Amino acid sequence: MKVVIIGASGYSGAELASLVASHNKLTLAGIYVSEASLDKEKYLSDLYPQYLGLLDQILQPLTSNAFADIQKNADFVCLCTDHKVSIELAPIFIEMGKKVFDLSGGFRLSSDEDYQKYYGFSHQNISLLNQAVYGLAEWQNTDDIKNAQLIAVPGCYPTAALNALKPLVDANLVSKENIIINAVSGVTGAGRKANVNTHFCEVSLAAYGLFNHRHTPEIEKYLGHKVLFTPHIGNFPRGILETIYVQLKENVTADQVEKAYDCLADQPLIRLLANKIPTINGVVNKPFVDIAWQQQGSQLIVMSAIDNLLKGASGQALQCMNISMGLCAEYSLLPKGVQE
Amino acid sequence: MKVVIIGASGYSGAELASLVASHNKLTLAGIYVSEASLDKEKYLSDLYPQYLGLLDQILQPLTSNAFADIQKNADFVCLCTDHKVSIELAPIFIEMGKKVFDLSGGFRLSSDEDYQKYYGFSHQNISLLNQAVYGLAEWQNTDDIKNAQLIAVPGCYPTAALNALKPLVDANLVSKENIIINAVSGVTGAGRKANVNTHFCEVSLAAYGLFNHRHTPEIEKYLGHKVLFTPHIGNFPRGILETIYVQLKENVTADQVEKAYDCLADQPLIRLLANKIPTINGVVNKPFVDIAWQQQGSQLIVMSAIDNLLKGASGQALQCMNISMGLCAEYSLLPKGVQE
Amino acid sequence: MKVVIIGASGYSGAELASLVASHNKLTLAGIYVSEASLDKEKYLSDLYPQYLGLLDQILQPLTSNAFADIQKNADFVCLCTDHKVSIELAPIFIEMGKKVFDLSGGFRLSSDEDYQKYYGFSHQNISLLNQAVYGLAEWQNTDDIKNAQLIAVPGCYPTAALNALKPLVDANLVSKENIIINAVSGVTGAGRKANVNTHFCEVSLAAYGLFNHRHTPEIEKYLGHKVLFTPHIGNFPRGILETIYVQLKENVTADQVEKAYDCLADQPLIRLLANKIPTINGVVNKPFVDIAWQQQGSQLIVMSAIDNLLKGASGQALQCMNISMGLCAEYSLLPKGVQE
Amino acid sequence: MKVVIIGASGYSGAELASLVASHNKLTLAGIYVSEASLDKEKYLSDLYPQYLGLLDQILQPLTSNAFADIQKNADFVCLCTDHKVSIELAPIFIEMGKKVFDLSGGFRLSSDEDYQKYYGFSHQNISLLNQAVYGLAEWQNTDDIKNAQLIAVPGCYPTAALNALKPLVDANLVSKENIIINAVSGVTGAGRKANVNTHFCEVSLAAYGLFNHRHTPEIEKYLGHKVLFTPHIGNFPRGILETIYVQLKENVTADQVEKAYDCLADQPLIRLLANKIPTINGVVNKPFVDIAWQQQGSQLIVMSAIDNLLKGASGQALQCMNISMGLCAEYSLLPKGVQE
Repeated sequence: MKVVIIGASGYSGAELASLVASHNKLTLAGIYVSEASLDKEKYLSDLYPQYLGLLDQILQPLTSNAFADIQKNADFVCLCTDHKVSIELAPIFIEMGKKVFDLSGGFRLSSDEDYQKYYGFSHQNISLLNQAVYGLAEWQNTDDIKNAQLIAVPGCYPTAALNALKPLVDANLVSKENIIINAVSGVTGAGRKANVNTHFCEVSLAAYGLFNHRHTPEIEKYLGHKVLFTPHIGNFPRGILETIYVQLKENVTADQVEKAYDCLADQPLIRLLANKIPTINGVVNKPFVDIAWQQQGSQLIVMSAIDNLLKGASGQALQCMNISMGLCAEYSLLPKGVQE
Repeated sequence: MKVVIIGASGYSGAELASLVASHNKLTLAGIYVSEASLDKEKYLSDLYPQYLGLLDQILQPLTSNAFADIQKNADFVCLCTDHKVSIELAPIFIEMGKKVFDLSGGFRLSSDEDYQKYYGFSHQNISLLNQAVYGLAEWQNTDDIKNAQLIAVPGCYPTAALNALKPLVDANLVSKENIIINAVSGVTGAGRKANVNTHFCEVSLAAYGLFNHRHTPEIEKYLGHKVLFTPHIGNFPRGILETIYVQLKENVTADQVEKAYDCLADQPLIRLLANKIPTINGVVNKPFVDIAWQQQGSQLIVMSAIDNLLKGASGQALQCMNISMGLCAEYSLLPKGVQE
Repeated sequence: MKVVIIGASGYSGAELASLVASHNKLTLAGIYVSEASLDKEKYLSDLYPQYLGLLDQILQPLTSNAFADIQKNADFVCLCTDHKVSIELAPIFIEMGKKVFDLSGGFRLSSDEDYQKYYGFSHQNISLLNQAVYGLAEWQNTDDIKNAQLIAVPGCYPTAALNALKPLVDANLVSKENIIINAVSGVTGAGRKANVNTHFCEVSLAAYGLFNHRHTPEIEKYLGHKVLFTPHIGNFPRGILETIYVQLKENVTADQVEKAYDCLADQPLIRLLANKIPTINGVVNKPFVDIAWQQQGSQLIVMSAIDNLLKGASGQALQCMNISMGLCAEYSLLPKGVQE
Repeated sequence: MKVVIIGASGYSGAELASLVASHNKLTLAGIYVSEASLDKEKYLSDLYPQYLGLLDQILQPLTSNAFADIQKNADFVCLCTDHKVSIELAPIFIEMGKKVFDLSGGFRLSSDEDYQKYYGFSHQNISLLNQAVYGLAEWQNTDDIKNAQLIAVPGCYPTAALNALKPLVDANLVSKENIIINAVSGVTGAGRKANVNTHFCEVSLAAYGLFNHRHTPEIEKYLGHKVLFTPHIGNFPRGILETIYVQLKENVTADQVEKAYDCLADQPLIRLLANKIPTINGVVNKPFVDIAWQQQGSQLIVMSAIDNLLKGASGQALQCMNISMGLCAEYSLLPKGVQE
């Protein structure tokens, strides 16, 4: 399959370009950025020196010619763009008959109301919103991913949260109070654009987006449970660690909790850590979700860690592409010997 | 007053030595370490190059001669030692008539039961435990600090938590459920001793001590409320950030919360941040507690940040020494113009 | 003396504001930034949360009213501005009769030729250039600093280099080949302005400015010797480490080198490290230059470390202000007991 | 081929285990550590959480049974051990008929004199020293690597230095003065063992090993030119950056320099950066040497960057194994599409 990536200069886009380029069944057919952002010809490796000699493609401006090229040369279109741009572009590529994988939040929520409340604008394409399939790879129906024209690739925080919490909620073990999710993300989560907040000397562990972060409704929608989600920025480049406080229903036993997590036991990209604690170092540059828990009475603490650029973005997009091609979801994300 | 510091080679001890040395009303009369830890003559500045020319004292072994010297030359004895060592040393110095400031956890809890449960040993000096005054500077009775022979200087995490939570609990605004304290500490909190866990390449954001950290009973004792306290190590040298989730009683208003915090408004070392978010950068090398909160219905998130070595250890010890001398608590911790 | 700071929102300006505010003989009479950079009222502590409660001044726009205020209320004007802005502003404030301390490179070189070559523009105020006194505090004639109307405060790299090298050159120990200066600076050296190069995830040890950095002619002018100066950016916030390779004249002995450095032995802000190695940690937040050397035959390696924002900028500006007031240069930079 | 790794718990050993495990033509037949270092059964992923699910092998104690197992089950034995241990072990495994790849410095120098001077002991196996082939992959004779029983895998600093400098020395462009190599290494270079020098809060950019680092004679031996090599520790986990100052012979032109580097142009693991500057970020987790240079008259600055654990250790060991098997040197180090 031929893949083009729009928004390839950002952290997720570049990571995805690298994953596609080293995938046996995919060809990286083009990497694009907005015309306005290109002052001169640039290679992806001009921005990311690590890719020199590995991924020597030119960043192309998304001109009208580019659309024509994409029409001819692409099967999959990946949007690593801002949600507003994604909402504009997705219907164009779908119209062309392409399968679109959108890494933005543009098609993850259900209602215009939520977009107004959390994203601050009115969604103009409700019908497409309703067609989009949420690409939470380990949980979504495989045929739905295969058949959809538009995959809404999940957000980074929701990926860590949903994989850690769905087993408990699905097993009906959680009391009705809010689940509290305390999350810390690496700075790549804030994007590559120059900003004083991501200045090397200004980054410092701190909370943000209290009570109103966009990932709150996304988590609640796919979890089916209320959460109090508090993200923080941390002083490391990549990774997310969520420490999650769950109030279990009365008399839920350790056995019941363990059995609930059995549903993940065979998932190749989920590591249930028996007696260990998830760490950022353990998941950086890896496609996994690391999950562990400890219980005391009806209080359960679940810890979940991912690489925000891999499992939290590009890795999961690739899982969706793999599924769409009928491959195992982890294809090319794990070394051959480990892959199913 | 003449001050000696036992355990001056650790992070808190060295920081305290520096504070004492630059204090107008205190003289640093001696800095000591255990005999076993000294293989050869060492200056404090051999361990901490920043102190060269500023604090050129020799680390002395705590021999029997040293005890004799301390008997002659000290008024205040600061124990920056392990809690077991503190429990042994405190009665010796009290017997000499010295006033002892203990920065360990050796005299902070009330019951032998708690020491057995959280510290793993039986406390052999319950009568001294009962005499110790907890040096939470903004909250403790000034005369009690003045009159006590033994001050149990609070732990780092409890200092951040108690200053943030006591106003709410004292104003009776908190529902009876557990308060959840999610805390992240810099690596100095783990001590200076060589350990693979504090190796530069091994440190990585991760939780530890779930459900059983020693600071849990300390917080609960002085707060008078149950907490679920989860510490993490973070990849920065100094500072603690606590994100605290409080369930308010029904119908508690924003006004009531704000009024509850009025009790801290005039405290020179507590900064109530109106519309800002506490950060680690904001408190590093500063003697403050930074506190902010946001409320949504009956959910309240309180954020509290300190420098673990200053307000969380040496700075608060100095506050207690200042109070003992009849000075304002913040004496020498703030520039002259700002100090009350 | 009343001090105003122009360009107070940058790293050096804010640091200098903090130094002035806590100085007994100076009053911080105003902190200014360019009108264009202020979108709304801002306190310095809105940018630097650590200063909240310590330095609660409003950043004022440099309007025509501001000039009138400065005319009335200031004795010393500190320019923490870009060199082009400094060249414009300095004559205005000198005309008002103020003493100007310029922290930019606008008045450090001698010739328009050098400005054209290294700064890329023609200096329009050669007569003022000739009046400016270079404020290398330990080396400049005290009366010259006192009597000058314009002090060109030295650059960060030159401060570390000149203090380390002038003893050797002045003692005539250096062969005529280029001295090689390999320097690494913390990211504050690149300024606070948002820029992808200072993004937390993009900063990485790397050289820059090969053969043409602006500090090359500055070092050569005041050293009187050719240098090959290669700066690097390092992944730490503050500090400069220079590793300097000197070819000594034949048969220069260790004694001769040591005697050459005797001239610095009594300088309170210079620490000659006998058997130690300068480190960044040793100088951060300290006003010192740390210098050490090792010799093998006629090869000498000199290491020099400073905090780029203190000794490399604001601290040295303060030294010059102290000298101008007839105080010892290190006044208020060292604790009282240590200060001469 | 079946590979065992001795010393697999260290940074290089673990990295090599990971490379071998994902190599199509190699089988990881066993990972060993010293008996003394194993207090209980441990998986490699207990030390390195990132390998969980990817590399789930038990660290085995190097008992006498282990030697018997290795005799039966291994073709290649990789020594990721201290040089003293390597000198003891290498002859044992050679005796068994295994091909030994030693990553220590035990077999890199020529003379006992150098071992006494730089390593502080007398080498007891001069005959084996003389048989060892230096595995500098891009430069060593392929047949020599194939035929040798003992490969001395080059040190990290020498790998960066030799690849950058051999083209110039071989082309006879360098004047006879010392080449100055200023090098900065990440903290993994200091090993994983707990040590206060590698404590998170103690690491700080600083030079070490002036005039006497063990890599000096190694570089000089294989370069055929005198160097002044000064290593530094930097505050990042992985990577080495060398900034190298070369005095060219008179009248050497830019063309001549460029032509000298032509010999590297087709090397798949060497990236000659045309107008760019090598950075640590560019090489971390990559098998490359990044090289760039700038010239001014007869002064040449060459910059060279590697990942110290890959090209500087395990990656180069793998190159040597590939060559030994008749594969291209970069086999499995580059994605399939890029590999020759």
